[in-house]
Amino acid sequence: MSHTIGTPANSNVPKWVYQFGGGSADGAANERDLLGGKGANLAEMAAIGLPVPPGFTITTDVCSEFYQNDQTLPGDLKRQVEVALDHVGKTVMAEYGSVEAPLLVSVRSGARVSMPGMMDTILNLGLNDETVEGLAKRSGDRRFAYDSYRRFIQMYGSVVMGVAHDHFEDVLENFKNLNGFERDTDLSADDWSEIIDLYKELVIEHHGAPFPSDVHEQLWGAISAVFLSWHSRRAATYRKLHDFADDWGTAVNVQAMVFGNMGENSATGVAFTRNPATGENALYGEFLINAQGEDVVAGIRTPQPLTLAAKHEAGDNSPALEEVMPEAFAQFVDITKQLETHYRDCQDIEFTIQDGQLWMLQTRSGKRTTAAALKMAVEMANDGMISKEEAVLRIDCLALDQLLHPTLDPCAERKILTRGLPASPGAAVGQIVFDADRAEELAGEGKSVLLVRVETSPEDIHGMHAASGILTARGGMTSHAAVVARGMGRPCVSGAGTLKISAKEKTLAIGGDQFSEGDILTIDGSTGQVLAGEHPMRQAEMSGDFGVLMGWADEFRRMKVRANAETGRETSLALQFGCEGIGLCRTEHMFFEASRITAMREMILAHDEAGRRRALDKLLPMQRDDFVELFALMKGLPVTIRLLDPPLHEFLPHDRPEMEVLAEKIDLNVEDIEKRVSELNEFNPMLGHRGCRLAITYPEITQMQARAIFEAAIEVSKRDGATVHPEIMIPLIATKAEFDSLKVVIDETASTVFKEQDYTVSYDVGTMIELPRAALQAGDIAKSAQFFSFGTNDLTQTTFGLSRDDAAPILNHYTANGLLPIDPFVSIDQDGVGALVKLAAQAGRETQSDLKLGVCGEHGGDPASIAFFEEVGLDYVSCSPFRVPVARLACAQAHLNSKDKSASKA
Amino acid sequence: MSHTIGTPANSNVPKWVYQFGGGSADGAANERDLLGGKGANLAEMAAIGLPVPPGFTITTDVCSEFYQNDQTLPGDLKRQVEVALDHVGKTVMAEYGSVEAPLLVSVRSGARVSMPGMMDTILNLGLNDETVEGLAKRSGDRRFAYDSYRRFIQMYGSVVMGVAHDHFEDVLENFKNLNGFERDTDLSADDWSEIIDLYKELVIEHHGAPFPSDVHEQLWGAISAVFLSWHSRRAATYRKLHDFADDWGTAVNVQAMVFGNMGENSATGVAFTRNPATGENALYGEFLINAQGEDVVAGIRTPQPLTLAAKHEAGDNSPALEEVMPEAFAQFVDITKQLETHYRDCQDIEFTIQDGQLWMLQTRSGKRTTAAALKMAVEMANDGMISKEEAVLRIDCLALDQLLHPTLDPCAERKILTRGLPASPGAAVGQIVFDADRAEELAGEGKSVLLVRVETSPEDIHGMHAASGILTARGGMTSHAAVVARGMGRPCVSGAGTLKISAKEKTLAIGGDQFSEGDILTIDGSTGQVLAGEHPMRQAEMSGDFGVLMGWADEFRRMKVRANAETGRETSLALQFGCEGIGLCRTEHMFFEASRITAMREMILAHDEAGRRRALDKLLPMQRDDFVELFALMKGLPVTIRLLDPPLHEFLPHDRPEMEVLAEKIDLNVEDIEKRVSELNEFNPMLGHRGCRLAITYPEITQMQARAIFEAAIEVSKRDGATVHPEIMIPLIATKAEFDSLKVVIDETASTVFKEQDYTVSYDVGTMIELPRAALQAGDIAKSAQFFSFGTNDLTQTTFGLSRDDAAPILNHYTANGLLPIDPFVSIDQDGVGALVKLAAQAGRETQSDLKLGVCGEHGGDPASIAFFEEVGLDYVSCSPFRVPVARLACAQAHLNSKDKSASKA
Repeated sequence: MSHTIGTPANSNVPKWVYQFGGGSADGAANERDLLGGKGANLAEMAAIGLPVPPGFTITTDVCSEFYQNDQTLPGDLKRQVEVALDHVGKTVMAEYGSVEAPLLVSVRSGARVSMPGMMDTILNLGLNDETVEGLAKRSGDRRFAYDSYRRFIQMYGSVVMGVAHDHFEDVLENFKNLNGFERDTDLSADDWSEIIDLYKELVIEHHGAPFPSDVHEQLWGAISAVFLSWHSRRAATYRKLHDFADDWGTAVNVQAMVFGNMGENSATGVAFTRNPATGENALYGEFLINAQGEDVVAGIRTPQPLTLAAKHEAGDNSPALEEVMPEAFAQFVDITKQLETHYRDCQDIEFTIQDGQLWMLQTRSGKRTTAAALKMAVEMANDGMISKEEAVLRIDCLALDQLLHPTLDPCAERKILTRGLPASPGAAVGQIVFDADRAEELAGEGKSVLLVRVETSPEDIHGMHAASGILTARGGMTSHAAVVARGMGRPCVSGAGTLKISAKEKTLAIGGDQFSEGDILTIDGSTGQVLAGEHPMRQAEMSGDFGVLMGWADEFRRMKVRANAETGRETSLALQFGCEGIGLCRTEHMFFEASRITAMREMILAHDEAGRRRALDKLLPMQRDDFVELFALMKGLPVTIRLLDPPLHEFLPHDRPEMEVLAEKIDLNVEDIEKRVSELNEFNPMLGHRGCRLAITYPEITQMQARAIFEAAIEVSKRDGATVHPEIMIPLIATKAEFDSLKVVIDETASTVFKEQDYTVSYDVGTMIELPRAALQAGDIAKSAQFFSFGTNDLTQTTFGLSRDDAAPILNHYTANGLLPIDPFVSIDQDGVGALVKLAAQAGRETQSDLKLGVCGEHGGDPASIAFFEEVGLDYVSCSPFRVPVARLACAQAHLNSKDKSASKA
Repeated sequence: MSHTIGTPANSNVPKWVYQFGGGSADGAANERDLLGGKGANLAEMAAIGLPVPPGFTITTDVCSEFYQNDQTLPGDLKRQVEVALDHVGKTVMAEYGSVEAPLLVSVRSGARVSMPGMMDTILNLGLNDETVEGLAKRSGDRRFAYDSYRRFIQMYGSVVMGVAHDHFEDVLENFKNLNGFERDTDLSADDWSEIIDLYKELVIEHHGAPFPSDVHEQLWGAISAVFLSWHSRRAATYRKLHDFADDWGTAVNVQAMVFGNMGENSATGVAFTRNPATGENALYGEFLINAQGEDVVAGIRTPQPLTLAAKHEAGDNSPALEEVMPEAFAQFVDITKQLETHYRDCQDIEFTIQDGQLWMLQTRSGKRTTAAALKMAVEMANDGMISKEEAVLRIDCLALDQLLHPTLDPCAERKILTRGLPASPGAAVGQIVFDADRAEELAGEGKSVLLVRVETSPEDIHGMHAASGILTARGGMTSHAAVVARGMGRPCVSGAGTLKISAKEKTLAIGGDQFSEGDILTIDGSTGQVLAGEHPMRQAEMSGDFGVLMGWADEFRRMKVRANAETGRETSLALQFGCEGIGLCRTEHMFFEASRITAMREMILAHDEAGRRRALDKLLPMQRDDFVELFALMKGLPVTIRLLDPPLHEFLPHDRPEMEVLAEKIDLNVEDIEKRVSELNEFNPMLGHRGCRLAITYPEITQMQARAIFEAAIEVSKRDGATVHPEIMIPLIATKAEFDSLKVVIDETASTVFKEQDYTVSYDVGTMIELPRAALQAGDIAKSAQFFSFGTNDLTQTTFGLSRDDAAPILNHYTANGLLPIDPFVSIDQDGVGALVKLAAQAGRETQSDLKLGVCGEHGGDPASIAFFEEVGLDYVSCSPFRVPVARLACAQAHLNSKDKSASKA
């Protein structure tokens, strides 16, 4: 497979080849488009004077020329490559094709982004029957030289010449069988020499031509192979899937080989400039004498520490690099510092020492734990290495969640029974119980319990509160259990399909294992694991770095962060986490408590308005007290209270025994209750009699809720002297007429209460935008509504026509098969749901230029969604208390990124 | 209550008063804004020379001036009114305020549209203690004169002077009690005179000032009262509700009174220029000698026929107007002809003959039956009185439905048991049965049956087919029963909430009445009535006029009309009704037949793909035969076939006995079936695993359906030589990726079948747009889809977030309370759902300028919705077969109206 190399068209030929190494480079890191990612990075390292094995990059323009000219390489390329190759040889005191001091090179592809499907690497070009002897002499290791040679033939033969890899393996296996060898290390230099002869025959047999012994033929064959691999089927498919252009092309990198296994004065190793687990600012890493990179990774020999400090700390006896090669070590330490300063981040570095000479093979940003990332970012910013903005941008928002919940000790062994969905982060250990009442009872005795249910319903709320964690067999990431658990900050594993739960028998079977009430399990809501027995835990630590970084984040964000909270406990937690208001107080949650649900049920089961009013009169003082507590805690911060939202049947008992208990309590007969339950039953409750529709058919409920809000606001206002300004939110609005009719009820209640109490508080009445129709009519609705809060959970359900309770199997299939990039209940679907949010925000602001806009769906705590909300111009996001820090950071990042964007546009 | 009348500001004063009568008029019909509707119409009649009682109109400008100038009437108005009043008097040889020949006038309000809440009418102004005697003499009826006088005081006293009407009634009642009178007719002229004195005292007592005896004071008081009524609370509310501007103002009409009760030479009557029941072109009406208008209406005396012809036809002995007043009659006949010619429509006329002199009181377009409307329109167009376009525009599309279904004899007495919703038009008589199998059985024996169910489900389809009519206790206008019944053309009454049905006992209780299987009931699906026993029916008549008019309609429409049909029977019916294609073939309906459902269930219950494929292989030939039948019937007309749409659990049995039967049939155990049924159960099936989601998770179903379609198309194509071009429609698309992945499956199946059969047919693959996300992403989806069909049922459900199965109570409350103008499942919600349709249509056409667009939801047969679809530019509508003629007419009207609009814009 050879390609004609053209002759130069004129003297003013383009620069096709960029050299690097020997203390300088033609290119730099910002020339990725021309040099590819790898080439640009090698050039950058060389340019700052690091000892990079010298080499050169053939530009992506050559690739384009190659394809534009019928797979012919451009003229003058040959000359430029020869000049560069000569320079490489001189730098390492060797020569390509020389027998005495043979230069070996590697050939690698390198597009502007890394791309599977393209040719990766061919090592050891330049070896043939003569030069191998030179390598043997120079390295003093004949076996190493012949092993390198046979590996080269094998690699080049399959990648460039198209001889299947299996054939080479077969030859080797046969040879080993015939000679009674078990492992590759059993083979001597002469054995490898014999294998080489067999490989050469194999190549002639399958390729029809001999393996090239001419080192230049080897080189050009490899270069062409890289260019051809750009249009391989896999690479083309990958580009299509990622929307990468076909005309980007790939570069080719040719680089001198260096060897860490050329004797006791050679070594190879890896290092981090800072500790990737803790973030400590100390060199961290390991190395092996007389070894290659793969030996460090393979774990056959135990690597040695780099520094004396590390050696002493670990109580390690093996000598540190600092001791055995003090000069190379000192140079390396200097270089690591230089690299960190240059790249302004902790680096993950590969190096080789060949015969006492240090070579840097790779440097890249080092992966780190969230705790380490925090520490590094804060220290680097304090040291002036990076700006505070950069520090804020360096933290992975989602990973932050890890810090806020207790987690399983990562060092302890895990007895995994099964897996569900990681529905609410954090880990929990406890006795399993199968119903909410029992959970409350045992928790009351001071026990830690896990509530295990097929699925949870609003009636389980008190049990979920009492439990340390929740485990369900059904339901997705946005099922009732998941949403409520996240809201409460309870760890939760949902949809663990292999659980067989019998609530009646109080037993749980997982695979072959049987558990009964009181048995201890552990769940990890961050991974979805369900574990046997009690696993050791690590408590969340809010280090000083956390506080510092969050403070910086707060400086850089535009959007406010509120919390979704109903109880005093949640509200206090949210305040600790830095929330700036309550964005969603779901009043219905307040009715599920045992002491209240009876009055609520009485209201629902009443035969007429008078009966409903009697029951509502009982609920009024309880609801008012709830709001008094919230307003008092929030000390004048905004509180958005949503009127009753769920369908009424959610409050009613669903089985006969419960109905009997209720019948006795409220003096009704069971048949009446059964009848009412069946009347309230709906085909599609999500699309049924709920939200503002309840308030419209039963305005007395709204009157009671509005009264409770205003009375509470006045009480706190008078008592604490705080400015209480409630924001009353009407759910599930589809038309302006609905909103208007309820605003009248609220305003009338306000003026009645204000007159009664001879005291006035200001308040807003706004609406959820959670139905497509509301989004489409937002301009009209904004004529009456004083704020919008996007309910993106319901908006996603209706826009997609997909019930989140039923979506799990569908979405799993879709995301697994590339039909959706991500679960739209996790990150907002920008094209569809997002388009409605944008449209509504614009239309709303066109009507009322300072209309307050927020979001209170699950997306309010999702960083990708937050970036979108920043773009749309919302005023705040609201999320569950535990998500508040994540949201604060995400808002800051979103704002910094959007500022960057506008800056780069300008 | 008196208002200052200003003095003229300058000599060039505006014209405040428009006179009419005496053969001429200052105004005309097109001056509604200035003269109000009533004033303009009176002017029009007078202008064409009709004998209208003379009078004048004070313009709406005066009303505006009145309110702009602190409720002061403009200068010069007084003078203009006096001039006009004088002219009126001269025309009828009387004078306002004269004792010898007193002119009496009426004062009426009249805005540009009729508006409740405004002052209506005051009659007999000009009466006082002197003029009443003049009236007595002139009429020769003293009692009449005094009765008129007391009526005037009563009316004026309450409307203008604010004395409550009840007070007057009390005085009258007291008087009658004291004097032993029972009825008003017992009172003599002197009695009325006494009453008048009492009334005057009453006015002083309550108003604080005497009743005005000055006739000019009477007149100005009445005029001011009209203007003041413009801003009455009720009128203001009405304007707000209907978006009418406050500054329109009202006009005031002052008109001479004429009396049909001034002796044997006077008469009063009503007439239609053509027969309003049959449309026959013959004068039709009745009259009474010496009577007032209300006497004709009251029915105390029997009115006489107008013409000799009518008299003879009715076998009536009473003399016709033609006989008793031949001259007036002849004049009247001339005028009716003139009116019809002038207004170019059948007129409904009120007239009075006072002392031999004919006066026209009112003419308006005459209400008529649909049959009459058809006949009139066709005849008028044939006679050249109106254009064909006008003929087409004159027919009420919805009323056309009456003609297409058998109806109850309107003359027969109705024994109404209860009422439900008029869910599918037409009437049916039959034996009641309580399950689908029994319905099929009895129908098989040739009996007419009514299927009575609490609600229907897809499993009842065969029974609904077999039944003559369907009656349900639950479900709205778009419930399963209603939709399917309309599709099949079966009369249906749904949601008759008072029915107590026991399917087990096979009994039905309605109020106190008990019925059992086999008892005969009648339902009227056009009114929702449920009737006891057998009621006489009238069969639908497709008269020649119907065909002629539909032909004209077809000339004038742009949109095609297709039908929603699955069976051969429905398809044939749709073709008879003039459909031009099938817009929606719901393939799932084909699986509910008893012979197929077992294979379908086997497919659903299969444990793996192989099992599903085995069951699908059984379904393939059946499905192919279905399509062969459809393609053959449609003879090359387009056929859109929708892939399987409903959630699979709809096909499974839901009770234990049925499961047991099934278990035996397909060799599974009942527990497995029960488990699968429960697995497939969803919280919100509407938003669940259905539509394309089924096809994506079970591509083998799509393969089978596509194969059946292509094999059938090839078979018919080969056999009949017709061009069969199937349109395959994918339901419930939310993303382009879904569509693309299924298009691949369909295209692959096509090429396989084409290769097997060595025959190719062309086909399109398109999508339903029935989710908000699809509408929002239509531009993208149109890159792949070859047509869109708007599924506005589901689009309404998701856009409103309202399940149509659960919506009935909510929508009833909303429409009753003005929160929605109309059920959005009946007429498309243009602001919300319509906005999405428009957006998607535009975006789709931007991508593909000739993209075929249709609608196949229930709205496809609704005239108001069709007008919207015309505006949006859809290519066709598709509706149930019985709706096809309605849709054809509605499309024509929509197109004519839109042409009018654009013409008037130009």
